[in-house]
Amino acid sequence: MNMAAVSTETCGRVELSVRERVPPLLTDLYQFTMAYAYWRTGRHREPAVFELFFRDNPFGGGFSVFAGLHDCQLFLRSFHFTERDVEFLRSVLPPGTDPAFFQFLRGLDCSGVTLRSVPEGTVVFARVPLMEVAGPLAVVQLLETSLLCLVNYASLVCSNAARFRLAAGPKRKLLEMGLRRAQGPDGGLTASRYSYIGGFDLTSNVQAGFLYGIPVAGTMAHSYVTSFTSLEEVWPQTLAAASGDPDPVDVISLTKGSLTRVCELLAAAPGKIREGELAAFLSYAIAYPQNFLPVIDSYSVGCGLLNFCAVALVLCELGYKPVGVRLDSGDLCRQSVDVRRVFRLCSEHFSIAAFDSLVIVGTNNISEQSMIELNEKENEIDVVGVGTHLVTCTKQPSLGCVYKLVEVRGRPRMKISEDPEKSTVPGTKSVYRLVDAEGHPFLDLVCLEVEPPPEAGVPLSCFPLGSDDSSVSITPAQVTCLRQEAFTRGQVTHPPCSAAETRAKVHSSLQTLHPRHKRLQEPDSYTVALSEKLHNLVTEIRRGSSNDSNFLLAN
Amino acid sequence: MNMAAVSTETCGRVELSVRERVPPLLTDLYQFTMAYAYWRTGRHREPAVFELFFRDNPFGGGFSVFAGLHDCQLFLRSFHFTERDVEFLRSVLPPGTDPAFFQFLRGLDCSGVTLRSVPEGTVVFARVPLMEVAGPLAVVQLLETSLLCLVNYASLVCSNAARFRLAAGPKRKLLEMGLRRAQGPDGGLTASRYSYIGGFDLTSNVQAGFLYGIPVAGTMAHSYVTSFTSLEEVWPQTLAAASGDPDPVDVISLTKGSLTRVCELLAAAPGKIREGELAAFLSYAIAYPQNFLPVIDSYSVGCGLLNFCAVALVLCELGYKPVGVRLDSGDLCRQSVDVRRVFRLCSEHFSIAAFDSLVIVGTNNISEQSMIELNEKENEIDVVGVGTHLVTCTKQPSLGCVYKLVEVRGRPRMKISEDPEKSTVPGTKSVYRLVDAEGHPFLDLVCLEVEPPPEAGVPLSCFPLGSDDSSVSITPAQVTCLRQEAFTRGQVTHPPCSAAETRAKVHSSLQTLHPRHKRLQEPDSYTVALSEKLHNLVTEIRRGSSNDSNFLLAN
Repeated sequence: MNMAAVSTETCGRVELSVRERVPPLLTDLYQFTMAYAYWRTGRHREPAVFELFFRDNPFGGGFSVFAGLHDCQLFLRSFHFTERDVEFLRSVLPPGTDPAFFQFLRGLDCSGVTLRSVPEGTVVFARVPLMEVAGPLAVVQLLETSLLCLVNYASLVCSNAARFRLAAGPKRKLLEMGLRRAQGPDGGLTASRYSYIGGFDLTSNVQAGFLYGIPVAGTMAHSYVTSFTSLEEVWPQTLAAASGDPDPVDVISLTKGSLTRVCELLAAAPGKIREGELAAFLSYAIAYPQNFLPVIDSYSVGCGLLNFCAVALVLCELGYKPVGVRLDSGDLCRQSVDVRRVFRLCSEHFSIAAFDSLVIVGTNNISEQSMIELNEKENEIDVVGVGTHLVTCTKQPSLGCVYKLVEVRGRPRMKISEDPEKSTVPGTKSVYRLVDAEGHPFLDLVCLEVEPPPEAGVPLSCFPLGSDDSSVSITPAQVTCLRQEAFTRGQVTHPPCSAAETRAKVHSSLQTLHPRHKRLQEPDSYTVALSEKLHNLVTEIRRGSSNDSNFLLAN
Repeated sequence: MNMAAVSTETCGRVELSVRERVPPLLTDLYQFTMAYAYWRTGRHREPAVFELFFRDNPFGGGFSVFAGLHDCQLFLRSFHFTERDVEFLRSVLPPGTDPAFFQFLRGLDCSGVTLRSVPEGTVVFARVPLMEVAGPLAVVQLLETSLLCLVNYASLVCSNAARFRLAAGPKRKLLEMGLRRAQGPDGGLTASRYSYIGGFDLTSNVQAGFLYGIPVAGTMAHSYVTSFTSLEEVWPQTLAAASGDPDPVDVISLTKGSLTRVCELLAAAPGKIREGELAAFLSYAIAYPQNFLPVIDSYSVGCGLLNFCAVALVLCELGYKPVGVRLDSGDLCRQSVDVRRVFRLCSEHFSIAAFDSLVIVGTNNISEQSMIELNEKENEIDVVGVGTHLVTCTKQPSLGCVYKLVEVRGRPRMKISEDPEKSTVPGTKSVYRLVDAEGHPFLDLVCLEVEPPPEAGVPLSCFPLGSDDSSVSITPAQVTCLRQEAFTRGQVTHPPCSAAETRAKVHSSLQTLHPRHKRLQEPDSYTVALSEKLHNLVTEIRRGSSNDSNFLLAN
């Protein structure tokens, strides 16, 4: 298992990647037809406010982790149409589109846009407006799909990773290895990045290490093992001792000797041994004597374990420290217990302490459920590798963030749906996180921006969402403002954090959350409430909506 | 609904995108540690053959569609390490790595690699080797993760789209609109591209239109509707008739008049009307009088429908042809029937034939199941938009392609797993598709490459996979060779097709498949069989494996 030092994140590299991956054409066509219609009716510069939020916490859980902000900031900063983009738009918008609109697009950027956002890596809850995007109506409309695309999957996979981390407990090392199962190259890269931020320790994805400074890990696949057939393929057949003794030692004969001893100790028939596997292990150990961690189930774990022990013994004799083994099929828990027993036996019998600290890596279609079971069943697995279930978020493969208009020209706007769940909350807002005397957040309060913030120790009345329109009275011990400006009229204001910094933020944000909201199954739901003023506004607009439409009669 | 003409696919643009998205570092670290170990032992140039396949058809179906080849070809052609890549690898590989290895990496490319593959867009089945990658052992090992990443999701989403197409029937138009729910920007782009290839007609994703020539579509979201509050916001308030009469007409008063007539016809209370929605529709119609297709459920379908009819009537009076409506919530089938009835009523009552050809678009969390129900329930939906369930492949979010070593130095290699499903089939192979007298493929035959191809009309005996090791005798009416060289020693040999050409290929490949294999639920499984010679080789290797490992005793 090789680990890279966390290198400093090179912002330029990441920004370039955002510009290449998220050109302003990577959006839905209707953003352009709407922008045109706004422009045509002269409303494109009207100040407008959109909010981004999701309606349900993913995976049946009690929380989510907000991620994707950093990419959004870079996207906003580089938002600009090239001549080629504009020409393409001209070819797909209806023929009657006024040519002056394309001139308008040519000059468009986000210099009039301000983004207030929950900091990346914060624990968040359903229905809290996570981002507020304010600016000229046509521009903030155009940003919708790209912002949703950047936040949706990032937050989903980060939340998924955080759940795997909670399931695994704090000690077990977690390795993300889902690149080949993700939605293409960039899906894999995004998965690696946000899995790390959500609480994984390592990734197999080298490019993710390169771009984001995530520690990378990996040693060998089955193909390496099956590519060998005999010890004759091992070359060189010698290895110099770690001590620096210049005389290389014949490791073939050493290994044959150690294998015989291991077979004797374990009362194993030498006929069980696959020579090709032994050759593969030995050649790898010669190449990387300090990093010997083979996959041992290419033929059978029994066979692989004998070969591992034989080669590991030789490494120890030459002063090296073998790292461990990987199990990739079958009942990982049971196997790990058997493997550990053999390691202890070897340690005692051959008096080699290195066998006591060998690492057992398990990688076999691990899901959240099987991660939970690792805490319930006896096992000796130190590192868990997770691929498919992590990156595809099998349990719920999309988060469903939406982006809704809440204000135009200073007037609150509201979508009043027949489905109450789909109605929106109008107006420009502030969001406060209320914390109890034990330091646990217990309520997110959504207020109108013009309202004074709630004060610590002062009781207030508010209206929890999803309840029957009745108010509750609460007294926060502390109050924090949940969002901050991340992009102000064209400038990135809150400088982005490195992946490692954001990862630390997720960790501390989750630490303060009360265990009852962190339970993976059937958690207590966290309260999100509207202030009295905001609740009154909603009621007024609803009431007004039923009798403000009699213009037909009035004319 | 705006549709772009399918532009010629610009290969250069796509190739650039592959080079940027799939650098050679976008792979698992163990590919490099294995490559080093091969290099160290002098085996890196040994000729090796890997095969790519999946073990189960996705979604419980009877087939899959193979996709991703085009990107693989471009990836192979541009495979090359930059100095920066090499320096990063030096920082993450163990310190003892021989510096000469990095020199080796600097000179590496795919000039020694040959790829034989099923053509992109072919209907394929589980356990058939879809791609065969031959070349120097270290190089073809390094390619594993990237090739899997490029094929896995492309084939999965293409197969998913093909199933949606089968469920929808041949006539309904299908619109992909999943960008905001995909795994980030490139996941969304890949989804758009392969959904089109799999049988969708349109995408909302403008960049997908730009890169791949896919027709794009879209008109307006709810935010456009809710951004309006009164008819005073409509500007200009006039529209010139389609005939070219230069005198613009006051559409505000025209619309009020037509709304009154519609309300009378439908016995609707004018109090039902939302003035903001009417203003939104009217302003959009003024901007795009030939492309009027609003979303009509922002407040209620009843209200939206009245407003639509009022504006559509005005457009008709001025000689324009309104396009239709979009329904985005609730029971789409029932609503579409109601809407159609109103359209017919308007057509008769106002004697406007344009109302007979209005399009109804349905977009509300459509799944494969709800698509099937569209064929069972009465409805009037002409175009269906699909997002989340299409791009995330909710039913099975990963395909699980694997890449297995089958030959080194001309010697067949086989992984003999304790789990028989995970054992591999050794040797370099040819794959033939056997077709019956009705023109339906009925069996894919996997042979050793050295065997002569099966002949039409000549009986042969073979061993179906997944059965109890017994042979069957069959006589094909036709035989086709399933794979062809797509990349030969550094050169793209079979030129890639445009997305539209590959889409046609999917269509014709699915056409020939017997309906019993195409059934979405509980299909008959298609037979994949080994030739006698290949079956014998497997048996020999299995048998040999139990007694070829007695080198311990022999020494």
